[in-house]
Amino acid sequence: MDVGRAPLYEKLVSHFESRPASFHVPGHKSGRGVDRQAKRFFEQVMSIDLTEIAGLDDLYHAEGVIQEAQELAAHCFGAEQTFFLVNGSTVGNLAMILSLCGRDDILLVQRNAHKSVIHGLMLAGAKAVFIYPEIDKHTGLTAGISIRDVEKALAIYPEAKGLLITNPNYYGIGSHLGELAELLHAHGKPLLVDEAHGAHYGFHPELPKSALRYGADMVVQSTHKMLTSMTMGSMLHIQGKRINRAAVKNCLSLLQSSSPSYPIMASLDVARRQMHTEGYEIIEKGLIHVRWFADQMKTLPAFRVIGSMETSDKFHTKDPFKIIAADLTGTLTGFELKEQLEARGCFCEMADPVYVLLVFSLATTKDDAERLYKTFKQINANLNLDKKELIPSIPNIYNLTFHHSVSAPISFNLDMIRHNKPVRHVALEQAVGFQAAEMIIPYPPGIPVLYPGETVTPEMADYLIRLDQAGAKFQGASLGDNHTIAVFAT
Amino acid sequence: MDVGRAPLYEKLVSHFESRPASFHVPGHKSGRGVDRQAKRFFEQVMSIDLTEIAGLDDLYHAEGVIQEAQELAAHCFGAEQTFFLVNGSTVGNLAMILSLCGRDDILLVQRNAHKSVIHGLMLAGAKAVFIYPEIDKHTGLTAGISIRDVEKALAIYPEAKGLLITNPNYYGIGSHLGELAELLHAHGKPLLVDEAHGAHYGFHPELPKSALRYGADMVVQSTHKMLTSMTMGSMLHIQGKRINRAAVKNCLSLLQSSSPSYPIMASLDVARRQMHTEGYEIIEKGLIHVRWFADQMKTLPAFRVIGSMETSDKFHTKDPFKIIAADLTGTLTGFELKEQLEARGCFCEMADPVYVLLVFSLATTKDDAERLYKTFKQINANLNLDKKELIPSIPNIYNLTFHHSVSAPISFNLDMIRHNKPVRHVALEQAVGFQAAEMIIPYPPGIPVLYPGETVTPEMADYLIRLDQAGAKFQGASLGDNHTIAVFAT
Repeated sequence: MDVGRAPLYEKLVSHFESRPASFHVPGHKSGRGVDRQAKRFFEQVMSIDLTEIAGLDDLYHAEGVIQEAQELAAHCFGAEQTFFLVNGSTVGNLAMILSLCGRDDILLVQRNAHKSVIHGLMLAGAKAVFIYPEIDKHTGLTAGISIRDVEKALAIYPEAKGLLITNPNYYGIGSHLGELAELLHAHGKPLLVDEAHGAHYGFHPELPKSALRYGADMVVQSTHKMLTSMTMGSMLHIQGKRINRAAVKNCLSLLQSSSPSYPIMASLDVARRQMHTEGYEIIEKGLIHVRWFADQMKTLPAFRVIGSMETSDKFHTKDPFKIIAADLTGTLTGFELKEQLEARGCFCEMADPVYVLLVFSLATTKDDAERLYKTFKQINANLNLDKKELIPSIPNIYNLTFHHSVSAPISFNLDMIRHNKPVRHVALEQAVGFQAAEMIIPYPPGIPVLYPGETVTPEMADYLIRLDQAGAKFQGASLGDNHTIAVFAT
Repeated sequence: MDVGRAPLYEKLVSHFESRPASFHVPGHKSGRGVDRQAKRFFEQVMSIDLTEIAGLDDLYHAEGVIQEAQELAAHCFGAEQTFFLVNGSTVGNLAMILSLCGRDDILLVQRNAHKSVIHGLMLAGAKAVFIYPEIDKHTGLTAGISIRDVEKALAIYPEAKGLLITNPNYYGIGSHLGELAELLHAHGKPLLVDEAHGAHYGFHPELPKSALRYGADMVVQSTHKMLTSMTMGSMLHIQGKRINRAAVKNCLSLLQSSSPSYPIMASLDVARRQMHTEGYEIIEKGLIHVRWFADQMKTLPAFRVIGSMETSDKFHTKDPFKIIAADLTGTLTGFELKEQLEARGCFCEMADPVYVLLVFSLATTKDDAERLYKTFKQINANLNLDKKELIPSIPNIYNLTFHHSVSAPISFNLDMIRHNKPVRHVALEQAVGFQAAEMIIPYPPGIPVLYPGETVTPEMADYLIRLDQAGAKFQGASLGDNHTIAVFAT
């Protein structure tokens, strides 16, 4: 196995260099047909934007260069089998759930899952028993789920098909995966991990170990998020005997384009080669700049900066590339701090009412880190933050204040998004007692707060009113526009 | 409405040119982090491979530059509303079906539909009443479905939710859409069209009119196939009152990546601008070369070449960019002719036992057309085809020999691909009477011949044996490897 090769990428390059004539799709014919003005951004990539012609294999029946590339990826990331994904980690989550759960099956699910997990439950017609994450009191941030709660859920629902967790979460915070895997396996059930934010884990001693290393059975990674593939390039990794691999493969073939993007697949191959051949060195280069930045920020005590692992009884792992920052004087909300940074050209991953999330990576440069620090200094000076009193504790209104550790089973199905039942829009204050007809997802981070079919409690309504007043954005929901939510009429 | 603008593409370019610092995903940070050796193909495109940061809108809650781009596309293609797709026409077909059909609902479906249509039925748990296409005796090719058969189906199944057809088919052959739309609308039902191969229709008088122009209610187009977007870039168009647009939108948000590719979306914007501003001229440039090629081929009577519209009582439209060619002497099968062409650098779209399919486009050059003609001349000379007798009629073994015009309802569900029932592999000869456990799809063109759950008839087994012996490839099926198919054990 030659880890320095990138068989899929190399095949595309050699096809291009053989100067073939194309009598197949795509219609742009290696970029020749693309609009003149747009050639400067598309000409290179379109010259390898090909399709399943002779020699280029077939993602859904891989036995040539795609299969070689997938085998190298499995070796690199520590899996027994790896599937390249061209529809993001979204499709990985959908396929994990569909392959495991039939109609009315129960799956244990970490409550703060990505919306694609809920969508997978809808497609399967399955039921979720939600396990609520713990809250870290020191920072107000959401941590992982506790072993105790999973034990409790398994005792009440021994028929559950497995557990799906999101690890690390959007802020880079993770659970104790090894203990979770052991517990699930002792019950003969698989641990599925949405590791979308952790594709780089395991390639440097300062990074947490990967979910596969901890024994997870099936793992989805967004190679584009923290490594260097094109966006929508992800991977689904499998190990062990608890997963029906044929079902996974069929589900992926059902849910993804029958014309998968070769540039995205090739970029996965190339991103894998980078980790395989110089993973440690290249990650170290990025870590130097994030360490420097976190260190410099100590000169600005008005800002709290959570970089690498902090003392917390609730965090078990923390991604050092995710910088979480807040204005401790309470002058700027997270949203406002984000705006101030972006007005000076520093674009952030997301904000909540308290924090901004800044994503560094192996590609972050010294210039970027210096520019960010300089920008924080400017904001600090402009608003005289040094002169203001620090607020001792941060109330993070995104934290759920009404959770139970293990929910009752909640049924999901596609009718929830097909709007078969009459729906009406009511003010948040009037929503209590009604079943929600839409998913409410403050965005980013894209974590559903309310699911269709779930009854709105007084605590939930109160929580959403506070979010709404703080100016949160809600993807796809009417909430942001007119302060109402859709509920089923009866 | 300024049709000469490409708002989404232009916004990405202006963001890039403002030299921002990225503290968000993707991890490659505008291509800086990509593997050195691969920069020559990825550097340009990665500089606009961004995510939902401020100013770049959100595909699933579009109200900024993406919405402007989608409105321009609706105007250009003649729709009332257009959704950009980043997971190919596959996801368009899935969303069309899921938005229309609930569990056990009946949909009328053209039998030679793309596999994504069957997958949509599985996801919905719906039933298909298949309407078989007609066969053109002159060429042995599959044409469209007849109005008479649809009338018959509507009389037997008045509860059907609508009709979904594939038009044009892979070979560029189409039905009489206007009459079909009228018939469906008279029954108060929508006509859904998988127009994956016809995104260019309507932009030149030598091309057929588009399905929207003929009154179709919902239409999916692969902008990458016959126009010039990146692969996986497609569009879903809607007009009229018969479609639940909110359900369509929700289904797309469920089935597509929550990190949709901005390069793919921008390439849709740019491909639309090209049609909007110079559609006729640029298509005419490509047509010149395909006309010239078809004309030159008359000097090689050993080859039948079906280019623009032929005399046929079964074809109603024909895409002139699709060249269908066969060796009339019977010396080379379609598969062998494809191999001969590709050995000389002319890569084909696909082959069947008789024909090769050659896809020209607006980007085809004079050099390409001349090279292809020269290659046919060489093959002709090498094999002395001129000296051989022409076979008067072509038996196309891909043509179904056992069809009924309207099938009984066939139920689809996800268990079909989750392999819950015990499965065994039997030789084709022994498969008769068993329920298929896999979809059998000769690929290309990716049209399912046998669906899971369907009983294998003697005629079907006979047909598959002939295909197998002719060397056809079967995507995802065991057939190609060991001449067996998977059936349910009981």
